[in-house]
Amino acid sequence: MVAVSRKARFSAAHHFYLPELTEAQNFEKFWKTSNRHGHGHNYQVEITVEGDVDPATGMVINLTDLRRILDEDVVEHFDFKHLNVEIPFFRDNLPTLENLAVYIWRRIAPRLEGLSLKLACVKVWEADDLYVEYFGEEPS
Amino acid sequence: MVAVSRKARFSAAHHFYLPELTEAQNFEKFWKTSNRHGHGHNYQVEITVEGDVDPATGMVINLTDLRRILDEDVVEHFDFKHLNVEIPFFRDNLPTLENLAVYIWRRIAPRLEGLSLKLACVKVWEADDLYVEYFGEEPS
Amino acid sequence: MVAVSRKARFSAAHHFYLPELTEAQNFEKFWKTSNRHGHGHNYQVEITVEGDVDPATGMVINLTDLRRILDEDVVEHFDFKHLNVEIPFFRDNLPTLENLAVYIWRRIAPRLEGLSLKLACVKVWEADDLYVEYFGEEPS
Amino acid sequence: MVAVSRKARFSAAHHFYLPELTEAQNFEKFWKTSNRHGHGHNYQVEITVEGDVDPATGMVINLTDLRRILDEDVVEHFDFKHLNVEIPFFRDNLPTLENLAVYIWRRIAPRLEGLSLKLACVKVWEADDLYVEYFGEEPS
Amino acid sequence: MVAVSRKARFSAAHHFYLPELTEAQNFEKFWKTSNRHGHGHNYQVEITVEGDVDPATGMVINLTDLRRILDEDVVEHFDFKHLNVEIPFFRDNLPTLENLAVYIWRRIAPRLEGLSLKLACVKVWEADDLYVEYFGEEPS
Amino acid sequence: MVAVSRKARFSAAHHFYLPELTEAQNFEKFWKTSNRHGHGHNYQVEITVEGDVDPATGMVINLTDLRRILDEDVVEHFDFKHLNVEIPFFRDNLPTLENLAVYIWRRIAPRLEGLSLKLACVKVWEADDLYVEYFGEEPS
Repeated sequence: MVAVSRKARFSAAHHFYLPELTEAQNFEKFWKTSNRHGHGHNYQVEITVEGDVDPATGMVINLTDLRRILDEDVVEHFDFKHLNVEIPFFRDNLPTLENLAVYIWRRIAPRLEGLSLKLACVKVWEADDLYVEYFGEEPS
Repeated sequence: MVAVSRKARFSAAHHFYLPELTEAQNFEKFWKTSNRHGHGHNYQVEITVEGDVDPATGMVINLTDLRRILDEDVVEHFDFKHLNVEIPFFRDNLPTLENLAVYIWRRIAPRLEGLSLKLACVKVWEADDLYVEYFGEEPS
Repeated sequence: MVAVSRKARFSAAHHFYLPELTEAQNFEKFWKTSNRHGHGHNYQVEITVEGDVDPATGMVINLTDLRRILDEDVVEHFDFKHLNVEIPFFRDNLPTLENLAVYIWRRIAPRLEGLSLKLACVKVWEADDLYVEYFGEEPS
Repeated sequence: MVAVSRKARFSAAHHFYLPELTEAQNFEKFWKTSNRHGHGHNYQVEITVEGDVDPATGMVINLTDLRRILDEDVVEHFDFKHLNVEIPFFRDNLPTLENLAVYIWRRIAPRLEGLSLKLACVKVWEADDLYVEYFGEEPS
Repeated sequence: MVAVSRKARFSAAHHFYLPELTEAQNFEKFWKTSNRHGHGHNYQVEITVEGDVDPATGMVINLTDLRRILDEDVVEHFDFKHLNVEIPFFRDNLPTLENLAVYIWRRIAPRLEGLSLKLACVKVWEADDLYVEYFGEEPS
Repeated sequence: MVAVSRKARFSAAHHFYLPELTEAQNFEKFWKTSNRHGHGHNYQVEITVEGDVDPATGMVINLTDLRRILDEDVVEHFDFKHLNVEIPFFRDNLPTLENLAVYIWRRIAPRLEGLSLKLACVKVWEADDLYVEYFGEEPS
């Protein structure tokens, strides 16, 4: 078993504000990120695919397939967007790194399954020193 | 003469849209950055201060002064803001890297002059592979 | 379960020298790092916190809490210090990356437990190409 | 148990071409990397060694030993080489990141065993945004 | 005057060998880079364009134009190639960073002139710690 | 004219303390860097050499020469040292980035002159976001 990881980047706006809280409560909880004019980031997303190495090609996944998935399901989907406004999932869920990782997992895992491959991790950064990792739902 | 450079970072939202143009003309000129919902970046700003080395301290500028200027005039001023909406200068000037560099120069150069120091360059990045440098107005 | 990781930085001095060994034996074991005048590094420390995502905030841990822990227990504690001399734990334990990771774990894990959160990993770099990871004591 | 990781770098050429396929089939499978004139990369290799911390030295592995292994078994072995032509293993196995990781594991794991140490992971990058990780053969 | 800089990347193979010298003389001059099987790099190229800021757009150069020039004249031209073999200019000139910078200048400067823009610098890296800068021919 | 730049790294300790000032005055001027136990950094030094491209080799300077100069005059000279204590020049001059750049210039410029090459800049970092540049004494 070898794990292959590839990173993509996109630029987007977001903010954290819960309508059921007051302005002051939102500021206490989310500090300056509660500013409803929004701010933004250069996000980075890395997906890790695990599998056996194909003895003919020496690869777990064809790199063209891997790039296409990241381009279509990450870059095209998020780049130059306001996450709270333009991605329906984030109308009811704050666009935190945690929720981004879960959302991207749900988009990409089925596509990889269609190629008989296993998504092992989704990693999302909003800055070089802050990121989350999601390893999928535990089987129950 | 030695030049000292220090970098600061902030996260902000922006978009490029000229009201005198149509939606299609804006898209042609600015591509996806014309989306008025806005997107954002992790900006980096570096200022370069040139001067003689003080023989007593071995420094061109006290690093505490340099950090305070960047904190107050860059980070506090821009972090977690929407540039088009919350910085009056960018209501009439698109918040491009070029205009950001000129605007930051005008804020910081007089403060450094007050310390008898010369601002040599303002450098602004919106991504690791894209930045501008401004060296001040040519004396006429 | 999602894992959130944040990095902090500090600058400190250290050296590796065992008083029960001769100068030559220390040099053989630790090479130039045995120089008792000391040398130093820009250290980086990353802590990883694992937990369930709070459905209201979309977060595993409030980022303000995470930053405060790193500021107080890492940056304030180590920045601009000589580790061998000023941190009592390193009078009896060489300030290696391994011992730093264990020591930081012991400071931070109880604080996170107080917030009902689980420390999953402490990662410490002394250069971009050299780091250790500590995952806590195995339960016995 | 603490894990220690160190990175080394080398520059090499390679290409992906299967002689049993046509030119067009190779291009379809490997895209421009099938160009038999070859192209190249600045590769990075990171090895992770897991073990108990020696109470006397505070180290899992002596850093001089770790550097020597990387220098001899990675840098000297691959730097300034054409992988397909000059490394016999890659005459029968395409020099993909996956095969590189497995090959490096087989060179380094026995050397670490000789020092009573356990290789935990080999990580190989051919670009900053693309890498593989190999954790060794599952015991059967 | 503001300077705008953008970076592109490509992967290529090369080697340094002068046919008029012996094998040993080539090794003495170029060390392991004289290996005629070739090795390779992840190259980075940055071009800097200087000009006045257009008051309407706040830009020196439209970013779409800048990206297109880098894509067509750098990435498409060099990516996945063997420089010595596939770029005619490097049949008679060793593919050093210096010659690459001059060659890229000659491709890009006229295109920018066609847009009434001035190329100020071409910077080429073959590793993070080694690069050249070319500022064009001195006017005579 | 092409400029070639190469970077080297070293780890060292230092502190800023003027014996003619009180403890409190030193703290006011140098903040925590005045701690006489010392702290340290991973320093980076980049030298830029300017010259004509040799038509035979396509190089301004042989890379082996450039590496040897950095190894001998930078890495060997500073690595694993306490700058204040072990480098005589810094007994009378605080080991600031400014003084380091001037000191390194004076070591390296004559060696390059001996090779008929011109040192154009010495750049020294003590952190990724703080560096100085020295371009040599103005001719008088």
